[in-house]
Amino acid sequence: MNNASSNGRGSDAWSGSWTHFRVDRRSPRFCRVTFDHPPINTITATTVAELSELVGLIEQDADLNVVVFDSANPDFYLAHYDTEHDPGRTAALGVGPTGMHAWLDLLVRLARAPVVSIASIRGRARGAGSEFVLACDMRFGSRENTVLGQFEVGSGVVPGGGPMARLARLAGRGRALEILLVADDLDGPRAEQYGYVNRLIADDELDAEVAAIATRLARFDHDAVVRTKAYVDQVTLPADSEFPPALADFFEMLGRPEQRERSERLEALGLNIDSDLERRLGERVVEALPNG
Amino acid sequence: MNNASSNGRGSDAWSGSWTHFRVDRRSPRFCRVTFDHPPINTITATTVAELSELVGLIEQDADLNVVVFDSANPDFYLAHYDTEHDPGRTAALGVGPTGMHAWLDLLVRLARAPVVSIASIRGRARGAGSEFVLACDMRFGSRENTVLGQFEVGSGVVPGGGPMARLARLAGRGRALEILLVADDLDGPRAEQYGYVNRLIADDELDAEVAAIATRLARFDHDAVVRTKAYVDQVTLPADSEFPPALADFFEMLGRPEQRERSERLEALGLNIDSDLERRLGERVVEALPNG
Amino acid sequence: MNNASSNGRGSDAWSGSWTHFRVDRRSPRFCRVTFDHPPINTITATTVAELSELVGLIEQDADLNVVVFDSANPDFYLAHYDTEHDPGRTAALGVGPTGMHAWLDLLVRLARAPVVSIASIRGRARGAGSEFVLACDMRFGSRENTVLGQFEVGSGVVPGGGPMARLARLAGRGRALEILLVADDLDGPRAEQYGYVNRLIADDELDAEVAAIATRLARFDHDAVVRTKAYVDQVTLPADSEFPPALADFFEMLGRPEQRERSERLEALGLNIDSDLERRLGERVVEALPNG
Repeated sequence: MNNASSNGRGSDAWSGSWTHFRVDRRSPRFCRVTFDHPPINTITATTVAELSELVGLIEQDADLNVVVFDSANPDFYLAHYDTEHDPGRTAALGVGPTGMHAWLDLLVRLARAPVVSIASIRGRARGAGSEFVLACDMRFGSRENTVLGQFEVGSGVVPGGGPMARLARLAGRGRALEILLVADDLDGPRAEQYGYVNRLIADDELDAEVAAIATRLARFDHDAVVRTKAYVDQVTLPADSEFPPALADFFEMLGRPEQRERSERLEALGLNIDSDLERRLGERVVEALPNG
Repeated sequence: MNNASSNGRGSDAWSGSWTHFRVDRRSPRFCRVTFDHPPINTITATTVAELSELVGLIEQDADLNVVVFDSANPDFYLAHYDTEHDPGRTAALGVGPTGMHAWLDLLVRLARAPVVSIASIRGRARGAGSEFVLACDMRFGSRENTVLGQFEVGSGVVPGGGPMARLARLAGRGRALEILLVADDLDGPRAEQYGYVNRLIADDELDAEVAAIATRLARFDHDAVVRTKAYVDQVTLPADSEFPPALADFFEMLGRPEQRERSERLEALGLNIDSDLERRLGERVVEALPNG
Repeated sequence: MNNASSNGRGSDAWSGSWTHFRVDRRSPRFCRVTFDHPPINTITATTVAELSELVGLIEQDADLNVVVFDSANPDFYLAHYDTEHDPGRTAALGVGPTGMHAWLDLLVRLARAPVVSIASIRGRARGAGSEFVLACDMRFGSRENTVLGQFEVGSGVVPGGGPMARLARLAGRGRALEILLVADDLDGPRAEQYGYVNRLIADDELDAEVAAIATRLARFDHDAVVRTKAYVDQVTLPADSEFPPALADFFEMLGRPEQRERSERLEALGLNIDSDLERRLGERVVEALPNG
């Protein structure tokens, strides 16, 4: 399928100089990606650029069956997006091969890739972090240590990376509306009950069980895996057209003066660092509201 | 959005002379509606007319973020429809702004309204009562005291207010078919397992927890709430065209001679009053069948 | 609707000489079908031919409300497909009234039939056995003794009988991908959690509770049952066009030389007989892989 990966040049690209995650190509069929962007694994323009490049490698690799995404930080899987006080950096990411903004583009391409993607979740995954795991094919969470949520509405904006499209299908209308509109944290048991994750695994067994699943998948016939996934994709993936309008809303609302004030208040309370605010963001996001 | 509500004249309308429920406009953003139509909160032509008017107010209120529907009767949330021996009163309700019969019209408009609707369920909600909660955005139920069901098929008719469309999406084909065709009561735990409600809350915490959720929603940016809901609406609400055929079937079947006999038998057994039949309707509905 | 069944000639057809299952027409409205094809209830070309004929009778019976499918073997509900070393026999089944291959045809017709079909599952239902229960309207499983799975990807092929289409809708994208791609067995509790079955029933109560459900359904107005099911069908059944491509993939992959080797290895390990391999097929299917 892809000469670069077939003739070995691909491995150079895989071991490239990633800065927000580490890549461990455990075998030709199995790759492990570990988010490692201290202090709390925020997603920035750099993360998006690196993930876009990684998804390109994943898409074009004729051997790879499975990629597992986990985190080096047990408290934060992927905190959420951080514009780093410079929305221009995010805007400058431009569009990807699908014609969509780089963030939507990489999520859509990952979901559609001829590879099984698994999110092995320990710690917090909110906002864009939640959007990332929702774009993975499967989600396994630590029973004791999983926090998922889309806090965006609580901070004044529309979630931009597709959770309306994806949660509506996974959790059904009522539960998706609760997750998105009440905008509070879900712990592991509620996330499992709502279909937000496939299922929970005891924290001390999570790594081993996900590795066993991935090792099993790595042994399977590549063509059987890819074709079967494609049939599920056809009836479960949202139409591409569902995504851009909400991201446009997100950017528009982010630029409003009152939203800048809310962001500044959240930063003053501890946003983007390992703080009590970040640990209880679902509950405390309301403190930045005008009547907070 | 709406001058009437923005300039204050709206509040006159809200405090109107409702007879089947009470309306408590707790704040500009939060409204609580309490069903109170003794003895068992049946839905009649009057209820439909009043709910239609209320939904009109909800739709046009530029301030309102959230409306909670609960019940003054702990045993009956909304029993079911009661034609009051005069189907003509129901027929005379006519069609609403969507062009659909008033009952379907108000449910469709509530689901689509730019306001979050929450059913706080304690007691029984069957038939049209179940159809009402299914049209709300979220459903929270008393863990100890929730009974949901669509008993219609057990009494000889097709459910007319859209539960095939809504339950199929919330519960999936297999569980929706069980609810609709076996037509028995579901207690809280099964309703939660099947996705019929978002989740259960201990009975003595239900009111406080739903109030906390509503109070939280009331603080949120109205535009963020409305736009996010609209994206979920786009991919989860049934097409309007799905509803009228089943209601037409319901009316047609209701008019059959054998159905009138079944209805008379159910009334003789205690339908529409606070009776053992009403308390165990899922189980006892079969007693009106020819071979009962 | 059908003269044969209405005038009594139908009962002759129902009591025909079935060889892979027994048919017990308990009443005009209720039929019980018990799979009984020792040693492990594999599905062969003969089973497909007999089921096709049975579905034809079900479709055309104007009286029948409900058909229950259970198994005479407590360890195997329906093991999976067995080509009996002669794929030509399966090919020779040809197409059914829908224009699809006989296997797809009978599943599609059963799902759409004006009769409620219930799978009462005790023991293993994998591969085509799982595909059969997924085509039934409702699935109830023994709490202690249910094993469901689609092991096909683990053996090198695409599942051919529609589980991508049906599981995606019942379990959601993430869980459907896990069932289909990880291709491992699910026990009862996980099958229930994922929506693969409606719910579990204690093993010693399963027969009685399913019989009670069927007896209740048998008493209901036939027209109310049929019309209500049809409304759910309209919004939950996959389009017919979703099925044939995956079956074509299945046949193509089955004919590959490496697949014949895998099948031979599985047979040597105990496929198609009551063996440890068959009892733990989800786990052991990997033993036939090249690197097994």
